Amino acid sequence: MRKRLPYRAMPTMRVHIEEIDIRTSGKGTYEITDQIAKILTRSAVAAGTVTVFVQHTSCSLIIMENADPTARRDLDEFFDRLVPENASYFEHDTEGPDDMPSHIRSVLTRSSEVIPIADSRMQLGTWQGIFVFEHRRDPHRRKICVTVVGV
Amino acid sequence: MRKRLPYRAMPTMRVHIEEIDIRTSGKGTYEITDQIAKILTRSAVAAGTVTVFVQHTSCSLIIMENADPTARRDLDEFFDRLVPENASYFEHDTEGPDDMPSHIRSVLTRSSEVIPIADSRMQLGTWQGIFVFEHRRDPHRRKICVTVVGV
Amino acid sequence: MRKRLPYRAMPTMRVHIEEIDIRTSGKGTYEITDQIAKILTRSAVAAGTVTVFVQHTSCSLIIMENADPTARRDLDEFFDRLVPENASYFEHDTEGPDDMPSHIRSVLTRSSEVIPIADSRMQLGTWQGIFVFEHRRDPHRRKICVTVVGV
Repeated sequence: MRKRLPYRAMPTMRVHIEEIDIRTSGKGTYEITDQIAKILTRSAVAAGTVTVFVQHTSCSLIIMENADPTARRDLDEFFDRLVPENASYFEHDTEGPDDMPSHIRSVLTRSSEVIPIADSRMQLGTWQGIFVFEHRRDPHRRKICVTVVGV
Repeated sequence: MRKRLPYRAMPTMRVHIEEIDIRTSGKGTYEITDQIAKILTRSAVAAGTVTVFVQHTSCSLIIMENADPTARRDLDEFFDRLVPENASYFEHDTEGPDDMPSHIRSVLTRSSEVIPIADSRMQLGTWQGIFVFEHRRDPHRRKICVTVVGV
Repeated sequence: MRKRLPYRAMPTMRVHIEEIDIRTSGKGTYEITDQIAKILTRSAVAAGTVTVFVQHTSCSLIIMENADPTARRDLDEFFDRLVPENASYFEHDTEGPDDMPSHIRSVLTRSSEVIPIADSRMQLGTWQGIFVFEHRRDPHRRKICVTVVGV
């Protein structure tokens, strides 16, 4: 990429949108980098941005170290301690003890991730992966909207 | 939306920008989803993204459960405990005990939210609302810049 | 800006991408607002968005109060207490005691910041600065990808 920068493009801009379903099986991280990369290929966009957006408030998105699984286990443990299920002051618990913590954990992380595209590829760092961060205990089907804007 | 995906558009791209003022009356969440939707309608953009950006460092933006008000009360309580006003090590307190906590709470949440647009509508999930998260005790007038990019 | 809003543009859209290197010298915040502003000038984009993206998982981006340095010192102290280096349950410590905390601090802040552009300028508030938030103790060379999309 470096040789061609600054990249400057003015041909036909386009918008390409796809929705994907992710099945989760309890709290934790689920990598979706490859699925986003495939959508990018189908979009035929060479330069621009891809916006990944999760249509829920009890799971979220993160960009995280994708090589060593212990890093994601430690992350889970940290969030379980930071936002414990048994907080005495929680009023919102209609769906169980993991209901309110799931909203707080979502607010502390992200509903969307925006990743740059150059040379028809996401410009992720070597160790960066895109993950759905599931905050509920039960299995869920999660909808992710992926929007590619560029040339 | 589902029948038409993948959405692929190459007609005239446009940029539509508006600024809105939100009056807040103390710490808490203030929903702005409808105001963003109206700007989207005026933009006449059918597919792309809308970027909501708060021009302050003592309030922020979140996407949060918008049905049950107890969820947002619990969120307020969580943040009051996570970032207490009376931390003994705070040096930055020129504007009072809620000054430094407001910057930290902003860093822990978001300055911008990017939401996908398809079929001329924001692709929010059923329970997702966009909120200004006010971190100061006193009333404030907050400026939000809304940028729609798409076709 | 106010007089001309709503801003509505439909001329030639463009994408301008540049990569910048930031040298950090230990934990803390490093302002990059001016460097982003210069890229924006070179892009010749008058209206749209600029996406700043950090290609690492052990440093991150924040938008923060840029006037009083004590605000950023208090922020450092808060994060050192929120994500301590000596957590007994951390398994991922290959690169030292600041390894796992750096990933968690990145997840709690941002990999990307999206800032609106109008009148050829970033629409930042008076006190907003864009910072690389370094979470490692040792000096690092950090890569930031800056993508301008607009007209």
